[in-house]
Amino acid sequence: MKRMSRDIRTANRYEVLRRCLDRPAVSRQELAAETGLSSATVGTLVGELLDLGILVTGGFVDSAGGRPRGLVSVDAGHGSLVGVDVAETYVHAERFDLNLRVVARADRELRPGAHEPAHVVAVIADTVRAVLDADTGGPVLGAGVCMPGLVDRQGGISVYAPNWGWHEAVPLRELLAQHLDVPLYLDNPLRASTVAELWFGAARGRDDAVVVNLGTGVGAGLALGGTLHRGVSNSAGEWGHTTLVLDGRPCHCGDRGCVEAYVGAPGIMRNLRELHPGSPLLHPDDQTATIEAIGRAAAEGSAEALDVVRETARYLGPAVADLVNLLNPEVVVLSSWVAAALGGPLVSEVRGVVGRHALAGPFAAAEIVLSPVPTDPVSLGAATFALEGFLGRNGVDATGLRPGPRASIAGGA
Amino acid sequence: MKRMSRDIRTANRYEVLRRCLDRPAVSRQELAAETGLSSATVGTLVGELLDLGILVTGGFVDSAGGRPRGLVSVDAGHGSLVGVDVAETYVHAERFDLNLRVVARADRELRPGAHEPAHVVAVIADTVRAVLDADTGGPVLGAGVCMPGLVDRQGGISVYAPNWGWHEAVPLRELLAQHLDVPLYLDNPLRASTVAELWFGAARGRDDAVVVNLGTGVGAGLALGGTLHRGVSNSAGEWGHTTLVLDGRPCHCGDRGCVEAYVGAPGIMRNLRELHPGSPLLHPDDQTATIEAIGRAAAEGSAEALDVVRETARYLGPAVADLVNLLNPEVVVLSSWVAAALGGPLVSEVRGVVGRHALAGPFAAAEIVLSPVPTDPVSLGAATFALEGFLGRNGVDATGLRPGPRASIAGGA
Repeated sequence: MKRMSRDIRTANRYEVLRRCLDRPAVSRQELAAETGLSSATVGTLVGELLDLGILVTGGFVDSAGGRPRGLVSVDAGHGSLVGVDVAETYVHAERFDLNLRVVARADRELRPGAHEPAHVVAVIADTVRAVLDADTGGPVLGAGVCMPGLVDRQGGISVYAPNWGWHEAVPLRELLAQHLDVPLYLDNPLRASTVAELWFGAARGRDDAVVVNLGTGVGAGLALGGTLHRGVSNSAGEWGHTTLVLDGRPCHCGDRGCVEAYVGAPGIMRNLRELHPGSPLLHPDDQTATIEAIGRAAAEGSAEALDVVRETARYLGPAVADLVNLLNPEVVVLSSWVAAALGGPLVSEVRGVVGRHALAGPFAAAEIVLSPVPTDPVSLGAATFALEGFLGRNGVDATGLRPGPRASIAGGA
Repeated sequence: MKRMSRDIRTANRYEVLRRCLDRPAVSRQELAAETGLSSATVGTLVGELLDLGILVTGGFVDSAGGRPRGLVSVDAGHGSLVGVDVAETYVHAERFDLNLRVVARADRELRPGAHEPAHVVAVIADTVRAVLDADTGGPVLGAGVCMPGLVDRQGGISVYAPNWGWHEAVPLRELLAQHLDVPLYLDNPLRASTVAELWFGAARGRDDAVVVNLGTGVGAGLALGGTLHRGVSNSAGEWGHTTLVLDGRPCHCGDRGCVEAYVGAPGIMRNLRELHPGSPLLHPDDQTATIEAIGRAAAEGSAEALDVVRETARYLGPAVADLVNLLNPEVVVLSSWVAAALGGPLVSEVRGVVGRHALAGPFAAAEIVLSPVPTDPVSLGAATFALEGFLGRNGVDATGLRPGPRASIAGGA
């Protein structure tokens, strides 16, 4: 039960901080009203965030008949955070101020086939250094790095990245630490984009949400009871490798009929090839170009493109209905680059198909929407992991029941 | 966040009470050590349970060099609880003492086709009265009634019970209250058996567990983060209606290829019919007799029966692998009467098939076991809901942050 006591304290702290982000100064009373926490709890949590330098006091507001109320706000420039989205073909890094606004960006390519660990590490380090060197923002409190595949976040190890042929564990945090002198937090893009939805997107304030990531690989981030469900070994969400068609298409995981084989970018290319073999939308060696071509053409009403969207929804619909039936969420968020490219036409087709496959009750309870997060949700979520890591190192000790020794940002980073 | 604060308090109270059940008197210090809660928290929670009369003080134990420590234990006879398992073909009620030991049982049949709401209500009421009239146990604190299908537990309404042809909502609690003068808690057997595993079975002390219920219908109860995951409209767990074979066998829910169509009792009968059309194991109009015949024959090594178990595992394996991949649980518990009847042979076949379908990491992290709960897990879980309901009405008020006015058992029941 210790774990739960610590979780609740941590969740409350995030909730208070989230409410302060990117808005004018706010009173403790407003925070209590908005979060439903007691004034005493809000007072304690705000005190911790003030001690850490993340919040500052400033200004007063009249209260009807009472003492003027002191206001607090985020000290955006007092520190900064880095979020890194390592994908199959690129590395994208963003630096954020403490309001989680982007202050610098950098991108590097990962050439197809160039996936030896030492090379990948060098490219990541180079991308991060580019945003660290940017002459903007406060001291860097940490960097979150999201890697495809299975990740051991405690150990900072990439356990399994099949799309790169990494079948052996790679001690990524240790390798990166040889290049970078900031606290590093390793995790998976699926969990990052889910946290981004929880903090800033369609899952904000919802108890139960599922974030369906559609990219080269696919997965479903689970935000249950208002927090990220990681599972016992941090691999929850492998919806891409649940069975949709028993004994169906082969999947690169070794099994057959997996959801990913039908609705990941290569699966969608196969759907296109099967329906319209000579289609000009098909760029045989370029997933991104093909998916974007389908998306543009579908938006313009191309029958061929809409065929592919419909065929993809024929598979995606029952797979999303499975999530709705099993988890009974308030909202299903379609996220990542394939969802963004296929956009409105995909969402409306999927809604229809889910309605035919899901049970009436859970279907009626579940919204299905495109991610409203305006920037890259993976780097935003990765930066949030770095912020959570910083807060975790400063303020809640291992017993989870008493605040431990605190550090200022200068001391803690 | 209020919801979470209340949840944690409630979860801690259950945890303390669970540790006291069915054991000799225990000290607050032992409870604190076993639960990981602070002494102050344990002291408060034990105080509440003493005020309610559920615990009593008695005896002391020496502590090395300190004051003797006071002991507490459950006052088993101070009240009792009723749990009712309403299934497609029968109603089974059990009365429990406060140690959750069975003190009386009653059974009634529900004839096939006799499923009008008024008749079902009369049979349930008659079964409950039989255990209420038993001259044993303390005053009844409440009765939990578990109904197949979708249940609105707040409203006490059976929303949808397709196996009975109940497509309209039935206000079951209201109808039952005309016959029974005890607090009634309506829920679903899937959630009851999951709570039984959490309190007394294979999910006890585990963070993430899935309870796979195999009966006429099938479902997966989700115990995530140590508590029951209900979803936004209390329907989470409808794994029976997730898609295993796109466009496959028709399911009574109206969709095709659902897990239930292959591994529910009627689906297993169909597996038998397809493999061995004239098998003597088949009792055409009797699911229970057929499944039990398969189970007995499989245990004796019958090739025909083992064929059916293997074919069922060929479908059940990938469907369980989907749960392992998606949720990354510590344990998957196979429960309910079909799992009990097919027993060891089914579990060992399923383990093998799951290993071929699940990803290596989550498979390695997940045990797959038969339910160890020795009595009917649904009536046990239903009684637990009644206990939770009693505790909820006495001790934690609607804000969830302060203990409300307390009642003794006599006053509260």
